[in-house]
Amino acid sequence: MELTEETLSKTYRYKGYVVNMRSDEVRLPDGTQALREVVEHPGGVGIALENENHEFYMVSQWRYAQGRVLREFPAGKREKGEDPLETARREIAEETGYEGEDFVDLGPLVPTGAYDTEVIEMYYAKAGRYVGQHFDFDENLALSRMTLDQIIDEIMEQKIIDAKTIAMAFKIREMKNRK
Amino acid sequence: MELTEETLSKTYRYKGYVVNMRSDEVRLPDGTQALREVVEHPGGVGIALENENHEFYMVSQWRYAQGRVLREFPAGKREKGEDPLETARREIAEETGYEGEDFVDLGPLVPTGAYDTEVIEMYYAKAGRYVGQHFDFDENLALSRMTLDQIIDEIMEQKIIDAKTIAMAFKIREMKNRK
Repeated sequence: MELTEETLSKTYRYKGYVVNMRSDEVRLPDGTQALREVVEHPGGVGIALENENHEFYMVSQWRYAQGRVLREFPAGKREKGEDPLETARREIAEETGYEGEDFVDLGPLVPTGAYDTEVIEMYYAKAGRYVGQHFDFDENLALSRMTLDQIIDEIMEQKIIDAKTIAMAFKIREMKNRK
Repeated sequence: MELTEETLSKTYRYKGYVVNMRSDEVRLPDGTQALREVVEHPGGVGIALENENHEFYMVSQWRYAQGRVLREFPAGKREKGEDPLETARREIAEETGYEGEDFVDLGPLVPTGAYDTEVIEMYYAKAGRYVGQHFDFDENLALSRMTLDQIIDEIMEQKIIDAKTIAMAFKIREMKNRK
């Protein structure tokens, strides 16, 4: 079954500092035309950092678009042209104060693929040397530590609802179970 | 720790047919001002539909913003003011041809909360009466069936990378394990 949609034109509707917005004309597999709205995002990373007591570092922060505080694994946006592992090393030290070691690639996550280019690269790492937190001026977050069981309990209780955090927690447990 | 950010102004940059784009001025907890870009989305649903052979219906479709075909649980956008369970009943019949029965609420998922208002309500249901598929004119999808173990294998192999699909598959298995 042919599913590919071909781009006929791209029109930028907004160019922002984090995201751009386009509306494109496309040709569907049957030859008819349709419109596709696209949010362009540089991509991000998520990092599950475990310390020697088997606790993971969690950040609680105001998610403005959601109008509430969400508890999540540390995460960040990729700089232009930056390798995602570099982003992960930078973000985990900035947000938790600890360098990450022994990074394990948990693979890509597409948060909302229907209209958004964002892909989140997910990592699992061990906490190393303490180097101190360092936030962007507009970034406020509260750090906490949880075991994997506590995280999965909060997922099942619908307290943790962030997509990358849910995917990462379950992937890490599945990986540990399969060892 | 105070984390709340207060809206000072909202400016619409694009009003589209699926999403709108805003840039807002906000006041941070320390009183300084910052800019927040917001994608407004009406919200969606995802439905894991299981038949009597313990197979789940999966849809493969071209995700234009991602430039590739993704295999996912059936999903759809909420109409304005529509209850998410109604959306779920409509979408599952349209995409698989089967009515859903015995819906279990798997809770909300925030796919990318830093800049997007979207929340996906997730459901697990049993396949009921066959009523026939019914697609939108610009919707092309290929249907397949997989067991939960097969889905989780493809997640661990990084073949299934859609956020709601990963969250739903693991939540369903965890729910079954806890029974």
